[in-house]
This record gives sequence, C-alpha cells and structure tokens, in this order.
Amino acid sequence: MTLDAGLLFASDSRTNAGVDHISTFCKMSVFEAPGERAIVLLNSGNLATTQTVISTLRKAIGSERPNLMTSGGLFDCAALVGEATRSVIAHHAGQQAQAGSVDFSCSFLVGGQIAGERPRLFLVYPEGNFIEATDDTPYFQIGESKYGKPIIDRVIKPSTPVDEALKCALVSFDSTMRSNLSVGLPLDIALVRPNAMRVTFRHRVDVGDAYFGSLRQGWSQGLRRVFNELPSPDWLQLD
Amino acid sequence: MTLDAGLLFASDSRTNAGVDHISTFCKMSVFEAPGERAIVLLNSGNLATTQTVISTLRKAIGSERPNLMTSGGLFDCAALVGEATRSVIAHHAGQQAQAGSVDFSCSFLVGGQIAGERPRLFLVYPEGNFIEATDDTPYFQIGESKYGKPIIDRVIKPSTPVDEALKCALVSFDSTMRSNLSVGLPLDIALVRPNAMRVTFRHRVDVGDAYFGSLRQGWSQGLRRVFNELPSPDWLQLD
Repeated sequence: MTLDAGLLFASDSRTNAGVDHISTFCKMSVFEAPGERAIVLLNSGNLATTQTVISTLRKAIGSERPNLMTSGGLFDCAALVGEATRSVIAHHAGQQAQAGSVDFSCSFLVGGQIAGERPRLFLVYPEGNFIEATDDTPYFQIGESKYGKPIIDRVIKPSTPVDEALKCALVSFDSTMRSNLSVGLPLDIALVRPNAMRVTFRHRVDVGDAYFGSLRQGWSQGLRRVFNELPSPDWLQLD
Repeated sequence: MTLDAGLLFASDSRTNAGVDHISTFCKMSVFEAPGERAIVLLNSGNLATTQTVISTLRKAIGSERPNLMTSGGLFDCAALVGEATRSVIAHHAGQQAQAGSVDFSCSFLVGGQIAGERPRLFLVYPEGNFIEATDDTPYFQIGESKYGKPIIDRVIKPSTPVDEALKCALVSFDSTMRSNLSVGLPLDIALVRPNAMRVTFRHRVDVGDAYFGSLRQGWSQGLRRVFNELPSPDWLQLD
C-alpha cells in the first residue's frame, strides 16, 4: 500500500505444492542501505522461481553488474526484478518437454524509497513488465487476492493512516485465510516511512499474536452483528 | 443453497466477451410440472455453450429420449445436464484448430425436487461429472465466486431461515459486483419450498430495487462502522 504516511507491506508465508506439501517460507525480502535506500520485495507464485530470482538479485550485489543496491531509482529496480523473473521462467519452461504442465510463473511487488526519489511501488508480472501504483490505485495485491480485496477497496486511500491501513491488511488476510488453504500464518509486516530511507518497522504475526486473535474475533462478531441488523427483503413471499 | 426451509437460487445476468461485448442474459432456467417436479438450472461460463446445452435439454422434452421432465430423479437430471455439457464442449473444441485459444467450458447448478424424492442440489462440471450438496456443504457457487464466498461461509447452514439466506446471497453478490465487472444486475431469485413441487417464489432484483439499494448501503456503512470500532495493533511502532 502506498500511503501518504508510508509504504506498508504485508505477506503471508504459506507455500504449497499440493496439499501434501505445505510449508512455511517468508515471502518478504529486504534490500536496505540505511539513510540511502530501503527496498522491500514481496513474492507470489512458484517458490523455486522466486527463490532463484531473489538469489540472482542478491548475487549481483557487490558486482559490477546493475543491481538493487546501486540502481539510480526504483523504476530500475523493478526492471531488474522483471528481467530476472522473465529469465528464470524462460530457463525452466524451456527445459521442459511439456512446459504447459508446470506453472513456473511468479509475481513480485517492489516498493521502497531511494534517496532523491519519492516512495514508489511497482507490481512486476511474470513476463517481466511492470506497473506503478498511483493515487487512484494506491495498493497492489499478488497471489490469492480475491477473497481479501473487497475490504481493501472499501478502506484504503492514500490518506489512510498507517494503523488503520495495517488493521485493514490484517482483516483482508483473515478473510483469505478463512476461505483458502494456500494462505496461512505467520504474516510478515514491514513499514517504510517517507524519507526514512530504512525499514521503519517490522513485525511477524504468528498464531499466538493476541491482537490478531482479538481482531479476527471482533471482525467476525461485528460482521454477524451488522448482517443480523440489516432488514430482510420486503418483497419476499414465503407462501 | 440447500436449506431445511427450501432450495434458494440466485444468479446474476451479466455476460461478457471482452469489455466491448457486455450484455444481459438470464442465467436461470426453470423446468416445472407443478405438483410433480420443479427443477432450476443456473449456468456460468461460455454463453454459446450454455445456451446450446439448455436448448438441447428443452428439445428433448416431449421426445422418447430421457429428458428433464421424465427422469425418475434429480440425480438423473444432473447426469443429463452433464452429458449435454460434455458433448457440446467436445463438439466445439474438436472443431478448432487451436482449441486452447477459446474457453468453451461452463458449469451448471441443478437443483429442485421430484415427487418421491427429497430436495436435492448438484454442481455439474464442464467434464460432465457432478457432486451433490450435503449438510456439511449446504451451498454451491459457480462462476466468479471468490469475492462473495466469505460471507456465505460465515452465515449459511441448513437451518438458516430463507429470509436470512436470501439477505446473505444479496450481500454476497454486492461484494462480487463491487470488485468484478463481469458480474452485474439484474439478479434472478428463485425459491423451491420442500414438497411444493413448484417454484414457490421468483423475483428479479434490478437497479431500481429499493430494498437492495438500502441493503448495499447498510452493509457498506455497517462494515465501515465495525472496522472503525476495532482497535489498532498494539504492537505497531511508528517511529
């Protein structure tokens, strides 16, 4: 989410290769030079692809090659992530006799701030191209996004305060986790405040998080209360 | 929805073949012999396929062939719908040089009651096979289902009264219509009460429906109120 008060990131950590192979992997990667740049990557999709992309991006750091720690702006970072993604997917898909049978694709969110620029957020597609969030569309989701989208659409504007936006992100994940087994705890949270040039706040929400537990319960009970208070259709005839 | 108080059906009526080709088609078909049987079909997916399937099913009525008005039970009706679906899809897909480029698939819900049986509800897949709703899973959705699923999961049980279930279906459609352009008004509603052997109630919800308008507004305001009342994360540190 691109808020006036900062960039707010949230990711779950469940991966699955069928219901027999469910495990936990953090989907948030931080590239940071405090005072100069703070970049957060979130990934969804094929885990082998995303791990290879991130390893490739990390290996380039310190080399002569263009990389996330030397690029002049966040647009260039998104382009680097896109190029790495496209290249890894093409490599794996090209080696398959039946390329269609495995989905190697993945998506990335690339957000943060580099000294001299405003905070920016990009969504990078498996094809390597990307789009940037604007005031009209101040947030992006990747992965299993539909169940949790309605509440974000209702709440998030650039002017939304961080605490309210974070509450919204957690309610959104709650909806998704209730309806879809491929999304699960723990949730990773990161905040990059404007002009801080560092990750201002990080937190991991796991099963024992008392606040998240009470939020889920309060939201569930509140939804039921609102639902129960709404009138029944006046045109319904039961006989 | 399979409720103790009856089978409740709801469908939207938007179809699209790209954003330039949006039109309105009812996705609900009724096959009824009052006092003996009442069968409701809902369809999603490729419109050419679903129209051909329904025309095929209607043409069979009055002939010697097995059909929806003579079948001994609703299981056989689901099998007829499945066989017609599989056959139409195979016909169209088989005629294409590039079969993969067009999605001819569709799904059906087949519900109702035939004299001598209890009320039953089936979901028929594009492959022609089908599953039946049970007390554990008393509802099915087809088409664009994710946005609207969470509220149904929270509310619907077999014991849910009809007016509450209908309110839930309308709230569910509201969520979907807010987030997805491929679902739109009018909504068609049908109710088949147990042992009535007829469609007990039908209604079309269109733009001017005052109740639906107030429901959408009440739900939206209620959600915001509940959301605003929930506490912010106590572990969030902004500096």
